[in-house]
Amino acid sequence: MIDKLIEGIKKKEAPIVVGLDPTEKLIPDYIIKKSIDRYGETLEAMGEAVWEYNKGLIDALYEHIPAVKPQIAMYERYGLAGLAAFKRTTDYCREKGLIVIGDVKRGDIGSTSAAYADAHLGTVKVGSKVIAPFGEDFATVNPYLGSDGIRPFVDVCKEHHKGIFVLVKTSNPSSGEYQDRLVDGRPLYEHVAGNIAAMASDCMGSTYSYIGAVVGATYPEQGRILRSLMPKSFILVPGYGAQGGKGADLVHFFNEDGLGAIINSSRGIIGAYQNEKYAHFGQEGYAEAALAAVKDMKEDIAQALA
Amino acid sequence: MIDKLIEGIKKKEAPIVVGLDPTEKLIPDYIIKKSIDRYGETLEAMGEAVWEYNKGLIDALYEHIPAVKPQIAMYERYGLAGLAAFKRTTDYCREKGLIVIGDVKRGDIGSTSAAYADAHLGTVKVGSKVIAPFGEDFATVNPYLGSDGIRPFVDVCKEHHKGIFVLVKTSNPSSGEYQDRLVDGRPLYEHVAGNIAAMASDCMGSTYSYIGAVVGATYPEQGRILRSLMPKSFILVPGYGAQGGKGADLVHFFNEDGLGAIINSSRGIIGAYQNEKYAHFGQEGYAEAALAAVKDMKEDIAQALA
Repeated sequence: MIDKLIEGIKKKEAPIVVGLDPTEKLIPDYIIKKSIDRYGETLEAMGEAVWEYNKGLIDALYEHIPAVKPQIAMYERYGLAGLAAFKRTTDYCREKGLIVIGDVKRGDIGSTSAAYADAHLGTVKVGSKVIAPFGEDFATVNPYLGSDGIRPFVDVCKEHHKGIFVLVKTSNPSSGEYQDRLVDGRPLYEHVAGNIAAMASDCMGSTYSYIGAVVGATYPEQGRILRSLMPKSFILVPGYGAQGGKGADLVHFFNEDGLGAIINSSRGIIGAYQNEKYAHFGQEGYAEAALAAVKDMKEDIAQALA
Repeated sequence: MIDKLIEGIKKKEAPIVVGLDPTEKLIPDYIIKKSIDRYGETLEAMGEAVWEYNKGLIDALYEHIPAVKPQIAMYERYGLAGLAAFKRTTDYCREKGLIVIGDVKRGDIGSTSAAYADAHLGTVKVGSKVIAPFGEDFATVNPYLGSDGIRPFVDVCKEHHKGIFVLVKTSNPSSGEYQDRLVDGRPLYEHVAGNIAAMASDCMGSTYSYIGAVVGATYPEQGRILRSLMPKSFILVPGYGAQGGKGADLVHFFNEDGLGAIINSSRGIIGAYQNEKYAHFGQEGYAEAALAAVKDMKEDIAQALA
């Protein structure tokens, strides 16, 4: 799957992933209104609104980007109806040739992590049938429980040719509270990175490993160090755009081959129509606004890398 | 909600919580077979089997225990049908007066944690309606992202009178990989505990805080230290039974008032019928076997505390 991701990045000249994180604030009012008119004031109405919104975005963007990253929390928030919209979104994206990075940040003790891995990247057997419960291509994983909480994901990745991105240094303001604390003279995130690098070297695609890392765009200096500590891992970089990261901050997340990083933007793309710069598209042009924002983001990153 | 939990523990003389973690290995074959006969080899069949299994357990146990802890991974593994069984289980438990601790181990950047908190402990507004998407009473939370990933859960707890248990020292073998690393001369988990204690003192029920911690029964020595570092927090203690923890290991997790800890057992209770000691109940007596195991667990803990 990492090879397919790299192929998509090269073909579409876009080391970017769009975060499909639908919230009431981002979904145009007319979509929500139409859905409530039809399904009443229910979670089903919100699930349908999420799906319609996403479908518009996917149809506008799929030829221009290699991957999407739905943040499952935004779907879980609408309960079962929201998760049905997550599944529908995932299926539709894969139908359109997009790689789906499930931003699920799961992680637990071994047997429980194995269940999460089956749910998101693997399959479950029912009688003689083999079924993929959610069927993403990549998932994000939380490392706090140590390697026996990560290994079940790695096993499922091996079997099903999928991949993971393990949280190393997250993009939020308080990420340093534990991640930056010095352990044997080095920040904790470097220890996490060292363990990922060791796992990654055993899990190689053609040129890169399918065991990657998450490092926030908001911490470019750490990005530079982490890039060198995990030479074979792709880095998933959230925090571009709305969270404050800029193209120039991203250079050090890439290797000299121009690969090794994929930059995520969520609100900055899917909510572009709310941004003054793209406001002329209007609510109903939300998907076209998103496409314009994707093109600008591609340009920003290309310039930074040039 | 912490007051209600304490009331339940006192009334039922049981500082215990049963982990409702249904897997193919634990659900009796006859239940799975019946469900597949009816729904085919589908995830729906597994969702129904999970629900029937859980209902039997809940009906047998609800008068004897204050709380249950469904591990959502075991439901997520069956996709949408599994999560529907999770919701049905949660609703039914609350109907029966049981407190539901959603073992979800969520945690993300602020806005995303807020979505998870709404999903599991709070409500969502759709038009003029206010709806609880999953409606657990407590949730477990992962601290790796720092306090801005935890605070949204605290805010929702305050508003909706719910509670959380934050992972401090987990029960799995490799939990020490990061959690035990020394930071300023003290293990990382003590730093996490210190932050929880500070939050907890601002979030008090009548005698205990609704901000608790998770500390594995498999680490009794650490339990003793963490107990004193978080005097006002309830400690949720997994790892009793199948994972190796024994009654005698649990003493130090409790305060001198005999409160402050709630011990979880999952497989040891819900899979008791597979244990030689309770095998005479047979598959169809799985719920009675679970009840016998609960009574033995209560006795084991009472003796240890005496």
